[in-house]
Amino acid sequence: MVDTPNVITSRIIDTQALRAIVADVGLDRLMDEMIAGLGRAYREFDESLISTVDRTGFTYDKPDLGAVEWAPAMVTGERAVVSTNGRHPSNPLQRNLPTTMRTTAVYDTTSGRLLTLTDGTFIGAIQSAATTALATAELATLDASTVGIIGAGAQAVAQLHAVSRVRPITKVLVFDADPAVAESFERRSPIDCEIEVVPAKKIDAKLVAVADILCTCTTVEPDSGPVFPDTMHLPWLHINAMGADGPGQTELPLSLLNRAIVVPDNGSQCGARGESQAIPTDPDGPELRELVRFGGSQFRDELTVFDSTGWALHDLIGVEMLEAHAERIGVGFEFEIQPTPRDPFDPYELLR
Amino acid sequence: MVDTPNVITSRIIDTQALRAIVADVGLDRLMDEMIAGLGRAYREFDESLISTVDRTGFTYDKPDLGAVEWAPAMVTGERAVVSTNGRHPSNPLQRNLPTTMRTTAVYDTTSGRLLTLTDGTFIGAIQSAATTALATAELATLDASTVGIIGAGAQAVAQLHAVSRVRPITKVLVFDADPAVAESFERRSPIDCEIEVVPAKKIDAKLVAVADILCTCTTVEPDSGPVFPDTMHLPWLHINAMGADGPGQTELPLSLLNRAIVVPDNGSQCGARGESQAIPTDPDGPELRELVRFGGSQFRDELTVFDSTGWALHDLIGVEMLEAHAERIGVGFEFEIQPTPRDPFDPYELLR
Repeated sequence: MVDTPNVITSRIIDTQALRAIVADVGLDRLMDEMIAGLGRAYREFDESLISTVDRTGFTYDKPDLGAVEWAPAMVTGERAVVSTNGRHPSNPLQRNLPTTMRTTAVYDTTSGRLLTLTDGTFIGAIQSAATTALATAELATLDASTVGIIGAGAQAVAQLHAVSRVRPITKVLVFDADPAVAESFERRSPIDCEIEVVPAKKIDAKLVAVADILCTCTTVEPDSGPVFPDTMHLPWLHINAMGADGPGQTELPLSLLNRAIVVPDNGSQCGARGESQAIPTDPDGPELRELVRFGGSQFRDELTVFDSTGWALHDLIGVEMLEAHAERIGVGFEFEIQPTPRDPFDPYELLR
Repeated sequence: MVDTPNVITSRIIDTQALRAIVADVGLDRLMDEMIAGLGRAYREFDESLISTVDRTGFTYDKPDLGAVEWAPAMVTGERAVVSTNGRHPSNPLQRNLPTTMRTTAVYDTTSGRLLTLTDGTFIGAIQSAATTALATAELATLDASTVGIIGAGAQAVAQLHAVSRVRPITKVLVFDADPAVAESFERRSPIDCEIEVVPAKKIDAKLVAVADILCTCTTVEPDSGPVFPDTMHLPWLHINAMGADGPGQTELPLSLLNRAIVVPDNGSQCGARGESQAIPTDPDGPELRELVRFGGSQFRDELTVFDSTGWALHDLIGVEMLEAHAERIGVGFEFEIQPTPRDPFDPYELLR
């Protein structure tokens, strides 16, 4: 026993720090770094080094439909990352808050102490979108220029941003069940003003028919999908199915899903919560990690679906990126939250 | 959509705030409040209002034997509490840190936002010990005066404190595998100096034979129990089996367990991780919530075991108590960790 004070602190990356990081790095570079970081993580994924737990948690319908869920990940011998994810679709209209609000905590797996606490909402949006960019980079036709968006909330903004980093997008057709949300999409989009944004009043055949890439980003309720009909589409259509993930929550027409090459981000989780839950057998496409490792250009002329449910692996990469930038530019603050007595066997020492 | 800034903050109860709370309230009153609060929670427990998840997480042996685990609880329509618990038995000797280090986060289940982050180590020790006091108050003989302690680390300190709040303890026999830890127990104990503390060099028959109450608080490794032999004991011996809870980690001799009335804090969890895992059929005693509701004086002359594994319900009570005291005396601080854009559909607004 060492008889010295042993103050340990944890780092908070608060909103001000996050703002400073994004201002310093820039959105495009953050997205590109995330795409590269996640690409490496998927390529090098080794389940003897990294453990992830599929998302689980509380879901409820009081006072409104919602969920608080967690999907922890661990780098063995180093750190465990626990993101706690709230999804409350009534937030935007009732509370002027985003549907998704999450925090991410990092624990040292040598001592168990809390290393970092940060917002996970912003970086989570970047992570999810960047994952989609990995799939899109492999699966979409190389000169894909037209994107269709169904569900134009917060997720769609990051989604279009990510896709525009890997394909030469020039036109976006945007539908949302709330026309005001479709209308405001252009203002919210961080993309090049060369891209033409066209709000759509309804999901007409045209939106599906002309899209090279279709992104579904809805909060579809259980058993109320699909969110668009199985109509004519380009033979090389690539779909990113990003939206609501839970039992019974599927966005795509089953007939379309059945004839597409389906790539899940995480097979077991997609089978329970993603589009893949509607498919009686396993998805026929490779998992994203196989796709990233071995390439997917052979699928570029075919109908493909990326089934995105989120994977705890992403949180490892996202929070590391935030921590590295916070450290580099010196933002965030340290605070002492875990009392560390001189005598580790004395839980009451802090009172004396 | 409301076009006003919508800053939300979260409350941190840091070490300084915790110290202020304990100084203001006092240890005995904190323990008594916790015993009363947990008693109410157990008596009034209604599974249609409160959901709990059994503890699960990562366990590993690199760089040392350890675990990071979580056991969330929710009050439906109000809040979810997620405690993340680190257990690293090598901490005291290798890092001068407590074996158990935990943090507790509280989320609003209306919006999903983070309400509170606090240390959970200190209050967790109080919670566990207070739970044991509930069991001891029902099961131990009324004039129990002699306590035997096996495993004299941090947990044992709070344990003796709690037991001394419900029975007229005058003597404590203390064993630890590390004699220095047994020796330092008296210094670390917050108890009345009227109580005589006697360190024991070994677990001799006497320690078990004279105890009215025996508390096992060890970090026994899987399949290396029991931590004491099944020798002569008083017919009314009450045992609080507090220590290591994991597959294969049992502290008591099976023969003793088989003839005792065993009360689990949480039947399903105890069957997987507690002493009860060694019993082929269900424990014969009531669960703690039945015991607290209906009383247990009929067991006071018999050999009884309280099988403690911790239950997420405790965290609801513990963190509420900390929050209430922090609020009352005005300690802790608010910080903005979750960005709240004017437009909830704009994840990138914070950058502009």
